[in-house]
Amino acid sequence: ERRSTEMAATNKKIVLKNYVKGFPKESDMELVATGTAPSKVPEGVAGVVLVKNLYLSCDPYMRGRMSNNGGSYVDSFVVGEPITGYGVCKVVDSSHPGFKAGDFVWGMTGWEEYSLIKDPSKALFTIRHPDLPLSYYTGLLGMAGFTAYVGFHEICAPKEGERVFVSAASGAVGQLVGQFAKQMGCYVVGSAGSDDKVRLLREKFGFDEAFNYKEEKDLDQALKRRFPDGIDVYFENVGGAMLDAVLLNMRVGGRVAACGMISQYNLDRPDPVHNLVTIVMKRLRIQGFIVSDHYGKYREYEETAARYVKEGKIAYVEDVAEGLENAPAALIGLFSGRNVGKQVVVVARE
Amino acid sequence: ERRSTEMAATNKKIVLKNYVKGFPKESDMELVATGTAPSKVPEGVAGVVLVKNLYLSCDPYMRGRMSNNGGSYVDSFVVGEPITGYGVCKVVDSSHPGFKAGDFVWGMTGWEEYSLIKDPSKALFTIRHPDLPLSYYTGLLGMAGFTAYVGFHEICAPKEGERVFVSAASGAVGQLVGQFAKQMGCYVVGSAGSDDKVRLLREKFGFDEAFNYKEEKDLDQALKRRFPDGIDVYFENVGGAMLDAVLLNMRVGGRVAACGMISQYNLDRPDPVHNLVTIVMKRLRIQGFIVSDHYGKYREYEETAARYVKEGKIAYVEDVAEGLENAPAALIGLFSGRNVGKQVVVVARE
Ligand SMILES: NC(=O)c1ccc[n+]([C@@H]2O[C@H](COP(=O)([O-])OP(=O)(O)OC[C@H]3O[C@@H](n4cnc5c(N)ncnc54)[C@H](OP(=O)(O)O)[C@@H]3O)[C@@H](O)[C@H]2O)c1
Ligand SMILES: NC(=O)c1ccc[n+]([C@@H]2O[C@H](COP(=O)([O-])OP(=O)(O)OC[C@H]3O[C@@H](n4cnc5c(N)ncnc54)[C@H](OP(=O)(O)O)[C@@H]3O)[C@@H](O)[C@H]2O)c1
Repeated sequence: ERRSTEMAATNKKIVLKNYVKGFPKESDMELVATGTAPSKVPEGVAGVVLVKNLYLSCDPYMRGRMSNNGGSYVDSFVVGEPITGYGVCKVVDSSHPGFKAGDFVWGMTGWEEYSLIKDPSKALFTIRHPDLPLSYYTGLLGMAGFTAYVGFHEICAPKEGERVFVSAASGAVGQLVGQFAKQMGCYVVGSAGSDDKVRLLREKFGFDEAFNYKEEKDLDQALKRRFPDGIDVYFENVGGAMLDAVLLNMRVGGRVAACGMISQYNLDRPDPVHNLVTIVMKRLRIQGFIVSDHYGKYREYEETAARYVKEGKIAYVEDVAEGLENAPAALIGLFSGRNVGKQVVVVARE
Repeated sequence: ERRSTEMAATNKKIVLKNYVKGFPKESDMELVATGTAPSKVPEGVAGVVLVKNLYLSCDPYMRGRMSNNGGSYVDSFVVGEPITGYGVCKVVDSSHPGFKAGDFVWGMTGWEEYSLIKDPSKALFTIRHPDLPLSYYTGLLGMAGFTAYVGFHEICAPKEGERVFVSAASGAVGQLVGQFAKQMGCYVVGSAGSDDKVRLLREKFGFDEAFNYKEEKDLDQALKRRFPDGIDVYFENVGGAMLDAVLLNMRVGGRVAACGMISQYNLDRPDPVHNLVTIVMKRLRIQGFIVSDHYGKYREYEETAARYVKEGKIAYVEDVAEGLENAPAALIGLFSGRNVGKQVVVVARE
């Protein structure tokens, strides 16, 4: 739980100017720069930590928090208050026994230079591998990576040799799902929104096949060409027309991990999906999940992922925006596919 | 596996006249009456049984078999050949060691007076409770009942006290799902297509609430009134607009057993469903299933259901059409909701 306080209010920060309808714009957010940076937790306030924000994570689910229609699984942002989201931070001062000055942490923080975190044991994980690139804790080593891991290994229940399709495949989650699937000996195809991203999928992330969904007139045929025998596992990041086409191509007993449906987040009236009767005919399982329900297993994942990084067993691409002032553009860029890989904002490197 | 033979071809039978597009009509089928009834399996043919068909089951999935577009999970019917489907039969003669003359069986047979069943150990179950009304083996004690049982207890994974919604609730499957849910101490609401059916749900089957979906202008509001705190379990029989409205009303962690989507079976272009993003937001599980995948557990169910019937623990309504000649009308009636309860056709009572 992060709350603005008088101290945190004296920092450069990005605040929400108004609730958003349709696609978010940079002008829905605003940089506010006043006052000086705090260096201590407020006198007499127990159980809190003051952090310096280093890297902020831009995540698609944040769009839901920019509306106030209750459409998300987390609370709406508060107009006039800083955006909150995942980030990597350094503890500056602490009145909580679980944290001390100098610790690196990741978790829920504010889009500002310094944040006072209430209830830090709920909001933050201490970083156990500060020797690895700290920004990776906004993605591969943090929320997005763990999403890919839980979503693929637990929700998809994959078997060796199965045929796996991943949408938004070059993104933070997708690039890792594809690699986890390859590690398991699956046949893996990804879709992404530019030819450069498609190249990345094939050449850097080791997907067997990849295609630019924006260039395909008929998604059903695009999938049939890559999956002549159908799809066992679909890792769903986009929803809408892609989901509709995938449903026509699932194999009997196939599984869909419903991780996200980014193509729908900005629409007043969501796109129609027609082919749901295949759920019955092919005995499909479609399972939605939210990564935070699974954080009990995060520590196990952290070790696995850290080992992958150290052993060079995983490729990882970040898209790094420099400076808090560029955070709004970075965030809204997710919805036009401007990001290549995990979108990170650098507030400070140390 | 049932196949017409020269012998079976000498019986009164219902044949498919043409493949069907859109809603099926009586005139898509035809009664053919020629020859005399066989009384023996053909000389020298081992491993087959000759049955006299007593009760035929009208089932919505048969619509898929009337098309030849590969849209079903079972083969299409053959034009000019008898319709096949579930039925209750008496064994007249047998060259298979597992069956003997006089046995009552249920399973896949032909829409004709006598059928020669190849591979009867795959096609037929011997009826272990011939003292109970035999027609019940077309429903409560057979496929539809077992569908309700597996679908509710295994696919829905219900917990005591949960809020359960059932569509097509007065039908063969729905009426039983509702009662199984009440047995578990759930709050149960059903929808059906007439006020008489709604009365049946409340007064005969013990649903807590029921409504006529044809009279509701806004299905979302109709559900919100009956489920102010949302739905934990949806037993899906109809699809389309009802599914779309249900998705808006599911609780976190809710489950949908996708048993069927009858509202979609006759459409060239299936209805649009818009609210799938709730699958992610509410971490829903939507699971399709086909009862025949679960027949390994049927014998257990047969004993349970037989006990329910003997102890008067279950209410059961059948809609009985008399005579093979009335089978086409009975079958197509499923798609306009003409049936009240399980639709059966009596070919012969003994
Ligand atoms: N369930 C959870 O707990 C959880 C956790 C994290 C993320 N997620 C979900 O996972 C998905 C991916 O998240 P991420 O962090 O990895 O983001 P990301 O993929 O790094 O960035 C979003 C990407 O989505 C694609 N996109 C945007 N609009 C699209 C549209 N209309 N149609 C198709 N693709 C579109 C763009 O790539 P292209 O150039 O390829 O179009 C964009 O780069 C999102 O749906 C997100 O909500 C869920
Ligand atoms: N997965 C499996 O293994 C399996 C096995 C058996 C059955 N099923 C499915 O379970 C469902 C129920 O089957 P059943 O045998 O119990 O049939 P049923 O409910 O006894 O008969 C079909 C009923 O569906 C309703 N209906 C027809 N058209 C409709 C429409 N456009 N919109 C809403 N409701 C409509 C009608 O009732 P109203 O008057 O209420 O409209 C009709 O009486 C079907 O979808 C079937 O395919 C699946």
